Amino acid sequence: MSQPSEKRAKRDKVVLAYSGGLDTSTILVWLIDQGYDVIAYTADVGQDDDFESIREKAMKCGALKYVCKDLRKDFVVDNIWPGVQANALYEDRYLLGTSLARPTITKGMIEVVKEEGAQYIAHGATGKGNDQIRMELHAMALHPDIKILAPWKMPEFYNRFEGRTALMEYAKSKNIELPTARQNPYSMDANLMHVSYESGILEDPAVPAPEDVYGMIVNPKNAPDQGEDLEIEFERGVPVKVTNKGDGTVKTDPLDIYMYLNTIGGKHGIGRIDIVENRYIGMKSRGIYECPAGTILLHAHLDIENFTLDKNVRRVKQELSLRFSEQVYEGYWYSPECDFVRHCIDKSQESVEGTVTLECYKGQVYIRSRSSKTSLYNESLVSMVVKGDFEPTDALGFIKVTGVRIKEYYRQRGVDSITHPSDALKKGSGDK
Amino acid sequence: MSQPSEKRAKRDKVVLAYSGGLDTSTILVWLIDQGYDVIAYTADVGQDDDFESIREKAMKCGALKYVCKDLRKDFVVDNIWPGVQANALYEDRYLLGTSLARPTITKGMIEVVKEEGAQYIAHGATGKGNDQIRMELHAMALHPDIKILAPWKMPEFYNRFEGRTALMEYAKSKNIELPTARQNPYSMDANLMHVSYESGILEDPAVPAPEDVYGMIVNPKNAPDQGEDLEIEFERGVPVKVTNKGDGTVKTDPLDIYMYLNTIGGKHGIGRIDIVENRYIGMKSRGIYECPAGTILLHAHLDIENFTLDKNVRRVKQELSLRFSEQVYEGYWYSPECDFVRHCIDKSQESVEGTVTLECYKGQVYIRSRSSKTSLYNESLVSMVVKGDFEPTDALGFIKVTGVRIKEYYRQRGVDSITHPSDALKKGSGDK
Amino acid sequence: MSQPSEKRAKRDKVVLAYSGGLDTSTILVWLIDQGYDVIAYTADVGQDDDFESIREKAMKCGALKYVCKDLRKDFVVDNIWPGVQANALYEDRYLLGTSLARPTITKGMIEVVKEEGAQYIAHGATGKGNDQIRMELHAMALHPDIKILAPWKMPEFYNRFEGRTALMEYAKSKNIELPTARQNPYSMDANLMHVSYESGILEDPAVPAPEDVYGMIVNPKNAPDQGEDLEIEFERGVPVKVTNKGDGTVKTDPLDIYMYLNTIGGKHGIGRIDIVENRYIGMKSRGIYECPAGTILLHAHLDIENFTLDKNVRRVKQELSLRFSEQVYEGYWYSPECDFVRHCIDKSQESVEGTVTLECYKGQVYIRSRSSKTSLYNESLVSMVVKGDFEPTDALGFIKVTGVRIKEYYRQRGVDSITHPSDALKKGSGDK
Amino acid sequence: MSQPSEKRAKRDKVVLAYSGGLDTSTILVWLIDQGYDVIAYTADVGQDDDFESIREKAMKCGALKYVCKDLRKDFVVDNIWPGVQANALYEDRYLLGTSLARPTITKGMIEVVKEEGAQYIAHGATGKGNDQIRMELHAMALHPDIKILAPWKMPEFYNRFEGRTALMEYAKSKNIELPTARQNPYSMDANLMHVSYESGILEDPAVPAPEDVYGMIVNPKNAPDQGEDLEIEFERGVPVKVTNKGDGTVKTDPLDIYMYLNTIGGKHGIGRIDIVENRYIGMKSRGIYECPAGTILLHAHLDIENFTLDKNVRRVKQELSLRFSEQVYEGYWYSPECDFVRHCIDKSQESVEGTVTLECYKGQVYIRSRSSKTSLYNESLVSMVVKGDFEPTDALGFIKVTGVRIKEYYRQRGVDSITHPSDALKKGSGDK
Repeated sequence: MSQPSEKRAKRDKVVLAYSGGLDTSTILVWLIDQGYDVIAYTADVGQDDDFESIREKAMKCGALKYVCKDLRKDFVVDNIWPGVQANALYEDRYLLGTSLARPTITKGMIEVVKEEGAQYIAHGATGKGNDQIRMELHAMALHPDIKILAPWKMPEFYNRFEGRTALMEYAKSKNIELPTARQNPYSMDANLMHVSYESGILEDPAVPAPEDVYGMIVNPKNAPDQGEDLEIEFERGVPVKVTNKGDGTVKTDPLDIYMYLNTIGGKHGIGRIDIVENRYIGMKSRGIYECPAGTILLHAHLDIENFTLDKNVRRVKQELSLRFSEQVYEGYWYSPECDFVRHCIDKSQESVEGTVTLECYKGQVYIRSRSSKTSLYNESLVSMVVKGDFEPTDALGFIKVTGVRIKEYYRQRGVDSITHPSDALKKGSGDK
Repeated sequence: MSQPSEKRAKRDKVVLAYSGGLDTSTILVWLIDQGYDVIAYTADVGQDDDFESIREKAMKCGALKYVCKDLRKDFVVDNIWPGVQANALYEDRYLLGTSLARPTITKGMIEVVKEEGAQYIAHGATGKGNDQIRMELHAMALHPDIKILAPWKMPEFYNRFEGRTALMEYAKSKNIELPTARQNPYSMDANLMHVSYESGILEDPAVPAPEDVYGMIVNPKNAPDQGEDLEIEFERGVPVKVTNKGDGTVKTDPLDIYMYLNTIGGKHGIGRIDIVENRYIGMKSRGIYECPAGTILLHAHLDIENFTLDKNVRRVKQELSLRFSEQVYEGYWYSPECDFVRHCIDKSQESVEGTVTLECYKGQVYIRSRSSKTSLYNESLVSMVVKGDFEPTDALGFIKVTGVRIKEYYRQRGVDSITHPSDALKKGSGDK
Repeated sequence: MSQPSEKRAKRDKVVLAYSGGLDTSTILVWLIDQGYDVIAYTADVGQDDDFESIREKAMKCGALKYVCKDLRKDFVVDNIWPGVQANALYEDRYLLGTSLARPTITKGMIEVVKEEGAQYIAHGATGKGNDQIRMELHAMALHPDIKILAPWKMPEFYNRFEGRTALMEYAKSKNIELPTARQNPYSMDANLMHVSYESGILEDPAVPAPEDVYGMIVNPKNAPDQGEDLEIEFERGVPVKVTNKGDGTVKTDPLDIYMYLNTIGGKHGIGRIDIVENRYIGMKSRGIYECPAGTILLHAHLDIENFTLDKNVRRVKQELSLRFSEQVYEGYWYSPECDFVRHCIDKSQESVEGTVTLECYKGQVYIRSRSSKTSLYNESLVSMVVKGDFEPTDALGFIKVTGVRIKEYYRQRGVDSITHPSDALKKGSGDK
Repeated sequence: MSQPSEKRAKRDKVVLAYSGGLDTSTILVWLIDQGYDVIAYTADVGQDDDFESIREKAMKCGALKYVCKDLRKDFVVDNIWPGVQANALYEDRYLLGTSLARPTITKGMIEVVKEEGAQYIAHGATGKGNDQIRMELHAMALHPDIKILAPWKMPEFYNRFEGRTALMEYAKSKNIELPTARQNPYSMDANLMHVSYESGILEDPAVPAPEDVYGMIVNPKNAPDQGEDLEIEFERGVPVKVTNKGDGTVKTDPLDIYMYLNTIGGKHGIGRIDIVENRYIGMKSRGIYECPAGTILLHAHLDIENFTLDKNVRRVKQELSLRFSEQVYEGYWYSPECDFVRHCIDKSQESVEGTVTLECYKGQVYIRSRSSKTSLYNESLVSMVVKGDFEPTDALGFIKVTGVRIKEYYRQRGVDSITHPSDALKKGSGDK
């Protein structure tokens, strides 16, 4: 299958994002057939894979080389942490587990491109999803002269391999190892932040996902009957220490913190969602996500942030976060605008520090208390009995002055100008 | 305590927001002492009160009249439903249960003012909170010439009644009925949407709220071990039918729907939060909230909305919702800007219809599936096997064109211009 | 050149956007060569063209039919008026003259498609500009099953006609009339709203545009030494009457109003700009624009709007307008999001009515005064001598309450936390 | 009038913002009467005043001391430059000349407070305007424990001096120098950035401002018949060098640059506006502004910014600028949120550098050309003849993919769902 080495020097080099599965193995072999030298590349971003066995498959398929980079800590610090700072949620619900991993994976890939003197990258993503967009945009940013091969968008490939049968036959003819396990009836993407499931049997949004889809998080119904209390300490908007109040476990390394929160969240059934989301190009898509640590951190960060951040700074930052979430989802991590927004969000987090205590119990995170040296909370100010910087009479003035515009408006326009809820809202208003 | 009726005609009339408690009873009597005729007013917005007993107390205190208005359905349809359409959340977490009730309560109050020919309203809110602002701004909008008496902001009142003892003594001397039950060590506000708790023992944000604070929602740990499946049908972004898939219960009246979701949510421990929020005037305040139906509806509406609304319409509407939530929280329900934003949000919901199925279980709402005649979800479009309006090669063009700006930027500025996470994010990165 | 009519019935029909120039004439003939029946279509949106001569050219080239639609009034009412309501400006400067005309032109084109039973549209826009995107997206929205032929993006066309010489030779061989006048050394787009100039000698942004580029607006230096006073009356945010205070001219029809303001603006040198803008796909492009009436109306509408609209409604609307301008520029006029935003902006203009007086003089519009029945301006409120709804002491309370958050923040964080301008801002601070 | 010095040590010290006019002279004397020691303070922010004569008046009135601080350069660098970076415009038109000066003035005042060991500041602003809010909020931020005396909001003062006559009589009785010139029939505020005029004869928005109101800028009709060409060089979004292309004048110091642009702008009639704006508290107010250098710099900065900034970074920054303008107008310069936004805007300007050439002529600024080492403009990319990073066919894919959502939407909802302009827009559509 491989080419005689003396001819190799003249062949173009491709770094292929390789998972060891049938698709990317086929692509690997097909690329060699097309005359490329292929370096198979896997980013370890925490997925549950046997990289040694992937290496063997790659070499067996004829790869010039196999490179696996452990990017787990980079993923946590470079990409997940900014997501935590932002409270990043796409369309109010999705914690962006796949989206946040793509910049890490592509950065590693471009490093391999440079180390190996390659001219091309290749990937196995199809032309309908978000990942092709993310990976290709990231690659273009990090290496503006990179050339990209996306076989599932090349007619000579996708016309040849229409349908699984053609793929299997090609694989057999090329001695590519066939998957032994029954193929999942859906597609998934896994990393240390989350597992996502879509397509196949999940495509009908009116049909509930079967319980056996889930893998990272226990069914809340099977979660322990005792909750678990955690204390999470933040600095600059990111967790720097997690303490289990029950057994005293302490974690301080970013990757350790994240993995530990995954363990706790997964055990307590925290972080499962079933949503329909809008892909970048506007098509709606149904996805199931499991994101334990991300869910816990979202709750905790929201709490410490609102405790320490000025109200109006938070409001500005909230709009930046909306933009950030979109940018990340749509593949613009490496773009001038996301770079700018990340900088601003990070700046906003300078004094977001302190400790949140919470309980994880059967699918939910319960915030219990919080403390911080930089909190803007002032008990004596807020207390109804202590008088602070202003007298009760000042509030009279405040409201009177605030009300001038409102009074004037309704005096002029009449109270009847107020919109009342559309009749539609009254639908279903039968007799009691 | 009351004045001879022949003199009444000449006295100014006040409509007092009256709860039957010590504070507003004292205010009632004090206002009469100041020479006003007082009409005691209670809005029934679903709080758990005995209005007959409140009436008796009011009359005993010398009220000219007692008026109780059942505004529960108005509250649901006029105020909660727009909140549902908006996915209204203040600072990402608070469902605005108190804020949304204020316009209903004040609207009823101004109706009484007009029916009774009163010149004044009075209330017992203090000068540090949000409610004074909300009620007074609402009243100014609905009746720009109304005069407002807020004794807790009038030195002749608050200087006299500093501390609870002065209040008690005055009450005794005026034959005001003293509260029999031990006073709650915190203050609360209750209506059919939620109960809030703040102040007193809750003022220290580092101390968890004691379990006995909660009243509306069962402790998730005591919730049933079986979840309950609901089907919620929406039209124009609001629920029009709830079906319990287990026992077949069906509700279609707005108030019935809301109360029923409260029952189910409360039974399953859904809707408790413990947060620090920013009051309108910027002070931070710690509050505990219980909001069962609101929490279920937020989950359900987010789901049906994203299923039926165009991606980019939703994005514009999302920013309007952020503004709406602030406006509601800060007392601007009756303002030109909130009126405008409500209209726009309602417009966006025209095609938000369909059915969501979900399970309530131990403190969490799990979305299971959804269907809609107006969904923009198209299985064949999203499917990886079916080709739709575009060929895989089109995606190549899309990304290449999209990437032109990015490539050009990094070619010119260099990849090193990309912001890397601040070193602070690496804190805690010790050895593994 | 044309095909025998008996074969025509079986040929696919194309509606071609036809200008009579060399490019679209070549495309016309080429399309016939490819086996299509071509209906040549021109939208009269106010460009200075001889449509009869265009018709002759089209028929001479072999068009099955030539259709010219007078869409000038539609353009003004359906597209320019919403732009006026929005104060639509792309990137703070460009009044969107080309962008606003595209929906009108394409709507007319799709009407012809339906009237003629055509299956295709064709246009002569290239693959680098905004117009291809606008026209194609508009067409897809108005006729989701339309097929689009864009020869400048079809290799069989653009490879054949690379360079002007190939085009000229083909034209000669096909008897296509060659342009008699020397070709402009730049490209332009003209309609009743504006003329734009780009490319060619204008491509170097460091070289000033030569004076002879401009055609619609007189050089301000040659404008009359006397200004001209206009009175513009608005209803619902659009002009309904223009009165020339000097000579008494009155216009009330939308098209008449617009054309008259063009005349006055053009005469007084109003509306020339020279900018670098960002195309949809991010490339920067230098353009010269002449937009006389649009410039006058922007000034006048800003004035009457701020006079009649509530402050905070305007603020919300301002953000919607930013989105609207982008949507229009990027070709999303016919999209769910632009439809939604247009609805909201129109709603905001309900009470934007009244009269603005202004003077046009040598390149500038000077607002002189305004009056309105719906103004929210209240002389007695604003007057420093008349006391209104609040006492001066109330302002004390307002500021004290407003300041609580600020004081508290700087007490806690210290005044030194205030960002001082970066040292870069001091650059150039040499000796005086 | 002054107090015996031996008693002074025990008296509280007030720093009074002192202009030398009748109002602040009266306040000065009145404050001494109330038992305060008064330090009269003037900030030289470029207003056209004789500070020596102000000093004499202050001392004659009994001031303990007179302090005049030359803050002109601080004003330019610390406050105007961030405004230039932001393209700061309040409500699309007002360049914030008064608003931007207030932080400078108050910062100087608080410095005097600290130098002199004062406990109070005092000012002569009334309770209806913006300036009281700005100055008091700024002072609270810079010195959270400062006490503020605002006599026009103190009943003991404003009741006593209702009407000008009372003021005059008091002045006479206290030997306060009476104004010799006839009082302006409007109020004005002047600094090096602008002069504003409001109130009095300007209060009726339907009456044009008389020509003799204007003072800083020549009537465009009297401006030279020859324009003047300038070249303005920017670094980090602020001007660092101005060159007059005609006479070769060069300025590089920030204050020199600003003053020179004032001279040129004023000479050519540039920067007059007549607007109705919304005060912070919502009342509408009519103002006339003259802002020559600010107007020139707005045009120039918009040009160089769009030439050098990425499209999408600019879009994010544009929204931050809207917030910044409001914050500045409303007195929040010294606030956590404005501090944050200023930081972000400054960050966005890192590569905004280069040179703009423009012509000033009779009331208008004409941009002619621009160049920059950091421009993202790429002639070969934008050129219609050169092919760049993408083939024309790629554009086909881009549009097809982009259009999927649109087509799908209108296929499902029907084209008839498109909003057509409200009938109101057709008003005035009579016969031609």
